[in-house]
Amino acid sequence: MAESKKIIMVGIPGVGKTTLLSKIVEYVKGHQKSISVISVGTLMFELAKENGLKDRDDLRKLPISKQQELQKIAAKKIASHTEDVVIIDTHAFISSPEGYYPGLPEYVLKIIKPSNFISVSAKPEEIYSRRMTDATRNRDKNTLANVKKELDIQSGMISACAVLTGSPLKMVLNREGKVDEAAEKIIQSLGL
Amino acid sequence: MAESKKIIMVGIPGVGKTTLLSKIVEYVKGHQKSISVISVGTLMFELAKENGLKDRDDLRKLPISKQQELQKIAAKKIASHTEDVVIIDTHAFISSPEGYYPGLPEYVLKIIKPSNFISVSAKPEEIYSRRMTDATRNRDKNTLANVKKELDIQSGMISACAVLTGSPLKMVLNREGKVDEAAEKIIQSLGL
Amino acid sequence: MAESKKIIMVGIPGVGKTTLLSKIVEYVKGHQKSISVISVGTLMFELAKENGLKDRDDLRKLPISKQQELQKIAAKKIASHTEDVVIIDTHAFISSPEGYYPGLPEYVLKIIKPSNFISVSAKPEEIYSRRMTDATRNRDKNTLANVKKELDIQSGMISACAVLTGSPLKMVLNREGKVDEAAEKIIQSLGL
Repeated sequence: MAESKKIIMVGIPGVGKTTLLSKIVEYVKGHQKSISVISVGTLMFELAKENGLKDRDDLRKLPISKQQELQKIAAKKIASHTEDVVIIDTHAFISSPEGYYPGLPEYVLKIIKPSNFISVSAKPEEIYSRRMTDATRNRDKNTLANVKKELDIQSGMISACAVLTGSPLKMVLNREGKVDEAAEKIIQSLGL
Repeated sequence: MAESKKIIMVGIPGVGKTTLLSKIVEYVKGHQKSISVISVGTLMFELAKENGLKDRDDLRKLPISKQQELQKIAAKKIASHTEDVVIIDTHAFISSPEGYYPGLPEYVLKIIKPSNFISVSAKPEEIYSRRMTDATRNRDKNTLANVKKELDIQSGMISACAVLTGSPLKMVLNREGKVDEAAEKIIQSLGL
Repeated sequence: MAESKKIIMVGIPGVGKTTLLSKIVEYVKGHQKSISVISVGTLMFELAKENGLKDRDDLRKLPISKQQELQKIAAKKIASHTEDVVIIDTHAFISSPEGYYPGLPEYVLKIIKPSNFISVSAKPEEIYSRRMTDATRNRDKNTLANVKKELDIQSGMISACAVLTGSPLKMVLNREGKVDEAAEKIIQSLGL
């Protein structure tokens, strides 16, 4: 029995991860392989609702120990998936009032045991302007300096994740108008 | 009983951490909360003196195993504090002839279990000129390239610390003449 | 009995690590100390041959669990060396189709217990042109942007290694025509 590949894919808001993901799913489905994409944010919120929460923002207000417990339950759910390809759609960190919350702390990585990391980036200027045209975002905090800092921290945190697990890290630059190129690089790197 | 918040604050020499710290302490004291600030360097030296050392520089000359033992004793002392807010004043690394010594190795983090990381930086040019006017420093090794490298390593090491613990990382730029602004950002991020 | 110093030395292809290494070995041998230099790549391939592999490239095609087993056997061999100075010639990561494979994952570091890290870098332009004139390399993938990205990831991964072990990290810039200067910095940092 072939092992299930657990692929962790991260990218700060505005790099174009969602479009990339749909390209990859489309490709894998056309090649007789089973695939599932798990959004960690959505999974965490579903678990929180089972625990009585109503609003997504209330997650962060739980005691740290409770949040970590939910993170571990989510990680166990992810680890139990058996599809040929399991893509874990998440973030190296989540921006919050407390700062950058690691999306992949060690205790989560030890449960998921990812086989690959994909870190998506884009030119800071492109990220900046995508965020500027997105009405759902807080545009006040959108500065080019912030975008660059976030790309740096993403790179530092995901490097630490690779060292902790020993799994390879593919860094993909998603260039404006070249999403097919970026998707192809990811597909090749995964040997799909 | 509310938990004691353990806040690790790092910054390379010249970022202006000491001034920032005194602003934060002043604020917290004005808000009916207990606070203690622990300088890890001073604590380590006190422990070393109890072990017969006379000069601060002799610390580094102890066998590595002895140094690590002292680091763990210091970490346990820090972990035992019960004030509402415990600020751990330390460095992501200490520059030494052997290179950058991690100030927060994994075995220390696992004991302290910090709730937050604050990483203070400043413009490289400002750090450079503050170091140049500080008579107590070795000005020979002060180059702009070195300052930039140190900021990079601080960012890489503290990102690894966040991944190891799962605790949020607030990065604060301490701009010349804007120390109140930087202090306010930290106070907000800590929910104080 | 003096402890055996285990020194991990990394550098991306083109930084000039091999020349640096021979300078250091020459120096140490002239100072009545025993030294061994272990190339992790060569050691891994020898172990793989004992396990029936014929081609170096087949290493990567083994199941991940088998590769990690070989990595751990290699790490144990390295840890068992007792020379005064043991230099472990390796990489923070190896570029592969799957991305950047960490050369020093946590489970390897915990076995080797390195006393020092040396991270060699060079100006991106110099690395780029050295790679361009090296006929054995894939020059198609040699771009200045790639070289800069690799230097960034090397720095991020090796910073994580330092945090995991608590061992000091010396970063050395190997400047064109100044290899003796770089070698001297390393020798001083190791107290040899």
